[in-house]
Amino acid sequence: MINEIYDVIVVGGGHAGCEAAAAAANLGSKTLLVTMNMQTIGQMSCNPAMGGIAKGQIVREIDAMGGYSGIVADKSAIQFKMLNLSKGPAMWSPRTQNDRMLFAEEWRIALEQTPNLDFFQDMVKELIIENNQVCGVKTSLGISIKSKSVVLTNGTFLNGLIHVGDKQLGGGRMGEPKSFGITEQLVSLGFEAGRMKTGTPPRIDGRTLDYSKMEEQKGDENPQKFSFTDTPKITKQLSCHIAYTNEKVHDILRTGFEKSPMFNGTIQSIGPRYCPSIEDKINRFAERNRHQLFAEPEGWRTVEIYLNGFSSSLPEDVQIKAMQAIPGFENAKVFRPGYAIEYDYFPPTQLSHTLETKLIENLYFAGQINGTTGYEEAAGQGLIAGINAHNKVHEKPEFILNRDEAYIGVLIDDLITKGTEEPYRMFTSRAEYRLLLRQDNADIRLTEKSFKIGLAKEERLRKVEEKINKSSELEAYLAKTSLKPSIINPVLESVESAPVDQAYRATQILTRPNVTLKTLEDIPDLKENIERYSAEVQEQAQINIKYKGYIEKEKANVDKLTRLENIKISETFEYLNIKSLSMEARQKLTKIRPKTLAQAGRISGVSPSDINVLIIYIGK
Amino acid sequence: MINEIYDVIVVGGGHAGCEAAAAAANLGSKTLLVTMNMQTIGQMSCNPAMGGIAKGQIVREIDAMGGYSGIVADKSAIQFKMLNLSKGPAMWSPRTQNDRMLFAEEWRIALEQTPNLDFFQDMVKELIIENNQVCGVKTSLGISIKSKSVVLTNGTFLNGLIHVGDKQLGGGRMGEPKSFGITEQLVSLGFEAGRMKTGTPPRIDGRTLDYSKMEEQKGDENPQKFSFTDTPKITKQLSCHIAYTNEKVHDILRTGFEKSPMFNGTIQSIGPRYCPSIEDKINRFAERNRHQLFAEPEGWRTVEIYLNGFSSSLPEDVQIKAMQAIPGFENAKVFRPGYAIEYDYFPPTQLSHTLETKLIENLYFAGQINGTTGYEEAAGQGLIAGINAHNKVHEKPEFILNRDEAYIGVLIDDLITKGTEEPYRMFTSRAEYRLLLRQDNADIRLTEKSFKIGLAKEERLRKVEEKINKSSELEAYLAKTSLKPSIINPVLESVESAPVDQAYRATQILTRPNVTLKTLEDIPDLKENIERYSAEVQEQAQINIKYKGYIEKEKANVDKLTRLENIKISETFEYLNIKSLSMEARQKLTKIRPKTLAQAGRISGVSPSDINVLIIYIGK
Repeated sequence: MINEIYDVIVVGGGHAGCEAAAAAANLGSKTLLVTMNMQTIGQMSCNPAMGGIAKGQIVREIDAMGGYSGIVADKSAIQFKMLNLSKGPAMWSPRTQNDRMLFAEEWRIALEQTPNLDFFQDMVKELIIENNQVCGVKTSLGISIKSKSVVLTNGTFLNGLIHVGDKQLGGGRMGEPKSFGITEQLVSLGFEAGRMKTGTPPRIDGRTLDYSKMEEQKGDENPQKFSFTDTPKITKQLSCHIAYTNEKVHDILRTGFEKSPMFNGTIQSIGPRYCPSIEDKINRFAERNRHQLFAEPEGWRTVEIYLNGFSSSLPEDVQIKAMQAIPGFENAKVFRPGYAIEYDYFPPTQLSHTLETKLIENLYFAGQINGTTGYEEAAGQGLIAGINAHNKVHEKPEFILNRDEAYIGVLIDDLITKGTEEPYRMFTSRAEYRLLLRQDNADIRLTEKSFKIGLAKEERLRKVEEKINKSSELEAYLAKTSLKPSIINPVLESVESAPVDQAYRATQILTRPNVTLKTLEDIPDLKENIERYSAEVQEQAQINIKYKGYIEKEKANVDKLTRLENIKISETFEYLNIKSLSMEARQKLTKIRPKTLAQAGRISGVSPSDINVLIIYIGK
Repeated sequence: MINEIYDVIVVGGGHAGCEAAAAAANLGSKTLLVTMNMQTIGQMSCNPAMGGIAKGQIVREIDAMGGYSGIVADKSAIQFKMLNLSKGPAMWSPRTQNDRMLFAEEWRIALEQTPNLDFFQDMVKELIIENNQVCGVKTSLGISIKSKSVVLTNGTFLNGLIHVGDKQLGGGRMGEPKSFGITEQLVSLGFEAGRMKTGTPPRIDGRTLDYSKMEEQKGDENPQKFSFTDTPKITKQLSCHIAYTNEKVHDILRTGFEKSPMFNGTIQSIGPRYCPSIEDKINRFAERNRHQLFAEPEGWRTVEIYLNGFSSSLPEDVQIKAMQAIPGFENAKVFRPGYAIEYDYFPPTQLSHTLETKLIENLYFAGQINGTTGYEEAAGQGLIAGINAHNKVHEKPEFILNRDEAYIGVLIDDLITKGTEEPYRMFTSRAEYRLLLRQDNADIRLTEKSFKIGLAKEERLRKVEEKINKSSELEAYLAKTSLKPSIINPVLESVESAPVDQAYRATQILTRPNVTLKTLEDIPDLKENIERYSAEVQEQAQINIKYKGYIEKEKANVDKLTRLENIKISETFEYLNIKSLSMEARQKLTKIRPKTLAQAGRISGVSPSDINVLIIYIGK
C-alpha cells in the first residue's frame, strides 16, 4: 500500500517520537511517523508542564540544536518560572506550565510543517528484520512499510497495564488501547525486556476547589522562555496553587494499603523514585506529617486541574476520600482517579551511544522504552536517535554528545553504560560538569555542533555567534574599566559590600557576591555601556566573569578526562582473558563494551585499578 | 467513591451526549457526563462539518432551544455556506466546515462552563436497574454511581468492530477502544438489539494534493452562522476543493471487491443509504462514470484533508491506489485509510416520544444507539432526551416537539413510530410541513417553548419577540405602502418583471418571483424604511409575504391533522381483538402503541381504513 521506502520510520508520537521524526526529517531523511492515533500526537500523558531542574536545561539543549520541544512549550505556556534563581547559575532551571491541548496541537502543527515527514495512523505490531537489520514495520492492519531504519518510542504503550486499587485494565494511557507484539518479537530475537511502572494523579474539577485555603504560586514577574529563537514571551500567566496533605489525609490513604497494587505485590515493577505515589511517600517518610502538592491548571480555558504530588494507584474511593481531607479540597470532584501503569522497557545497556540497538542494526530506541521517565529525557533521546538514524542510513558519522557537552550526553551515557533498574530521571547532580552545562549557554555549547551536521539552521548559528561576540566585547570592556574608590564605594555601600581603597577593574568588583551588572549600572558611565547589550548577553558576560574560576577548574577536569575519552577500546577487546581485572569488571565490560577508557571508568563495578590495568593492556 | 445521587447521568460525550448533558444541567438537574476519554469530548468522528440540507435546520432548532451545537459550530467554523439558496426558503440550509480540534475544544469548554454538570472519565459497563427502573451505572473501574435517570449515547462504541478489507479490529473509532457490557445487559432485560454499519473515508496529507486540478469551492461571500445568539460571524474562510472519480478509479476499486467486507458477506449490517461507501456507489450506479468528491480541510492550521464522498472499507492498498487515480491525487499520501465500523443499536420503536425506553423507566437513548446517522440528528435527540430526563425526575410534563414544530419532532416521531432498518438520516422530504420548518424561523418556532420549560434564557426570548414584532411592523408598512406605476415600473423593468398600470401595495409587488426587498430599495422612500430593519428581520418579513399562501395552506393541513393528534389512544387499548383491523395493523399497533390517532396513521402498514376503524372504536 505504501510503496515508498522510508529512510526512517518513527513508531510513536510522544515527546521522543516527535523529536526523532522532526530531527530525521529536517536533516533530509524521508521520514514516517506511525502513531496509533493522530489526534494524540504530542500528548502530555502526565503533568502539563515542561522543564524544571535539570530538565529545563535539556529542553534548552534540544532547542539549541533545532529540536521543537522548546518552541512548542513556549507557544503553549500558561506560566513560566526560572527555578533556583537564588542558587548558582548551574542550578537555574526554566520551567513552564502548559496548556495540554495547545501543546499537543502545536506539536502536530510543527510536525506537519516539517518537510520530508509523512504520517500514518496505525499500530505497529512487528518489525521487519532481515539479517539482523531492521527493514520496516508491520501494522495491525497488516500493512508492511519498508524503511532503512526504525526508531521505537513506544512510551508506556507496550503491553500497558493500568492499575487502580485491585482493578486492572489494559491500556497505554487511560482510555487508550495498549500496543502489543513488539516486545514479544524483540525478546524472541534475544533482547532482554523488563517491566517498569509509573503513575499519575487524579484530575480534578477546578470549580470545586477553594483556592482561598491554598497558597497562590504565580509565574515569574518577567517570564522568560525556552527557545533561543524568537518565540514570543508570554504576556499573561495563570497561577498554580500550593496545598498540603495532613495526618488525616495520610490516615485515610493508609486504609487503602491492603488493596494497593504497590504494596500487596500486584505491581512488581519499579516506579520512578523521585516521582513517587502519595502512598509511597507516606510509607517511606512516615515521620513527615505533611507533603506539598501543587494544583496546576491544565490550560487557558479548561477548569481541569492536575494535582501534582498526589499520584496514586490506591482504590479510587480511598484516593478521593483522602483528597477531600486536604484543605481547599473539601468538595473536590474528580474527572478521573489517579492510576499506575506498568509497561515493557528494554534495559538500555543493549544500546550504543547513538541509541542504536546492539543486536539489530538500524534499530533505535528512545524514551520510556529505555527505562527513563520525563518528557524532557524522552525528547532528548528522540532527538539523538533521530539524528543518528538519519546519519547511519546516509553513511554519515555517529553523532554523540559527551558528558561535558550536554545533559543529553550525561543521560545517554548513564543509560547505556550503567543501565537503569528504575525509571531514570535527570538531576543536576548526575552531571559532573554541571557548571558547564547551564541553561543559559546551551546554544553556545550545542548550536554549532548541530549546525555542522545540518540540523540547526544558519540563523541560529549567527545568533549564537553574535551572543558570544557581544559577551566577549562586554567582558573586555569591563576588564579594562578601572573604577576609582570615589566612584565605586558609594555603589558598594548600597549593596552592603566592603569599600575599596584603591582602583579596581569592574570585572574584579563583579566577582563579589552582592555585586551584579545591575549594581554597576548605578555608575552612569557604565550604565550606558552595559545597557547597550541585551539581557541575554549581560547574563552571559556576568556568569563568565563571576564564575570564571569555577568554570576554568571544571574545564581542566574535562581535559583530564578527555584524555581517557580519547583512549578508544576495540569493539572486540577480550576482557575475559585478562586475569588482573576483577571478575565483575570483566563481565560488565564484556556486556557493555565501552568505547573509551573514560566510559569504562563510569561503569558501576569497574574500579580505578581496573582502569589502570586496561591502560596497560591497551598501551600494548 | 462518588456519593452524590445524580438526577441525570449521560453516558457518552459525542454530539448526543454533549447536548443531553448541557440541557439537563442547564435545566437544573445535577448531571454527570461519563465518557471513556475526556479528551475526546465533542469529537467529530467523521466529516469536519455541521449542518447541510435538513441538518442545518436541526442545528438552528437546537440553537433556538438553547442547545450548544450551533454556538460550538459557529466558534469553530472555517467556512460557511447557505445551501440551496436558489430554491425556496424551506430548502435553505446552513452548513459549516469546522476545525475538528477546535470544535471539540469549544464543546468541552462550553460544558465546563455549564453549572450542575460534573464529568467522569471511565467506561460504563453496566446499568444499575431496580424494579425496571434505572438507578445508576457501573464502570470498568468497578465504580457504582447512582442517579435517578440515565441517558445512553454510546454512538459507534457498543461492541464496535472496525473493518478494513479483510482485517477486523475492535474499537469505537480507529485508535480508540470499544465499549462493551451494556448491550448484553439490555438484551438480557428484553431489549431487541441490532447491528448497524457506517464508514469513513481516508484522511489525506493536504501537502500531497494538486489543487490546480480541482475546482475550488469557496465559502459564502457574506457568511452567516447557526446561532441566534451573538456568536460572531467568521471573517476569513478556507476553501474546499471538488474532485471527481473516473473509470480508472472505479476499475481499481473493483479489484478489491472480493476482499470487501461489504460485498463478501463479512458485514451483514446495513449502512447509511445516503452516505454510501465509494464501492457501494460504483456498484449501485454502475452506469455513472464519475462521482463527485470534496477535499475538505480539517482545520485552520492542519494540513489534514477529509475526502468527503470516498468512504471505503476496501483493502487499504486498493483504497489508496484508486485514490491516486483521481486527478489532483496522483501523489496523495494518506494519514490513515478509510474504514467501516459495525456497532450495536436498539430499534427505536422501543422508545416513547420522550426517548425514554418503554421497558426500563428513566432510561433514555439518544443518537446512533437509536439507529440514526449524523451529528445533527444525534444532537437533536440528545437535547430532547436531556430535557425529558430532567423533566421526568422533577415530575414535570413530557416535552415533545410535534412534526409541524420541528425537524427534531419529525425525526423522533419517525424513529419511534416507524423504527428504522438502516441508519436514519434527516431530509427535508421527511417533513410534511417543511415550509413551516425553515432554518430562518427556528427561533420563532421553538424559543418560547424552550423558555417555558426553563431552558432557553429570557434574553433569547426577548430577541425572538423583537424579531417577530419588527417583522410584523415591516410587513404592515409594506402592506399599507401603495406604489404608483410611475414609481414602481422602472424598478420592475430593472428586474425584467412586467410593468403595472395601476398602483399596487408593496406586498403585492413582492410576491412576484424576481422582486425582493432589495429590489424595492431602489425606491428612495422605501429604502430608508426598509433599511431600518436588520437583515434577519427583512428576510423574515420577505418570506412571510412571498410565501404567505403556501404557508397558510400548510398551516391548514396542520390543523386538520392536529385533530387526529388530539385523539388520544389509551396505553392499554386492545388492538388484537379488533377483527376489522388488518392483522399487520393489529400487530404493529400493539408493538408500537401510538399515543394518538395521528401517530397511528404514520405507522407503516397501518392504512387510512384502519384509522377509520380506530376512530369508531375510540369514539365508543
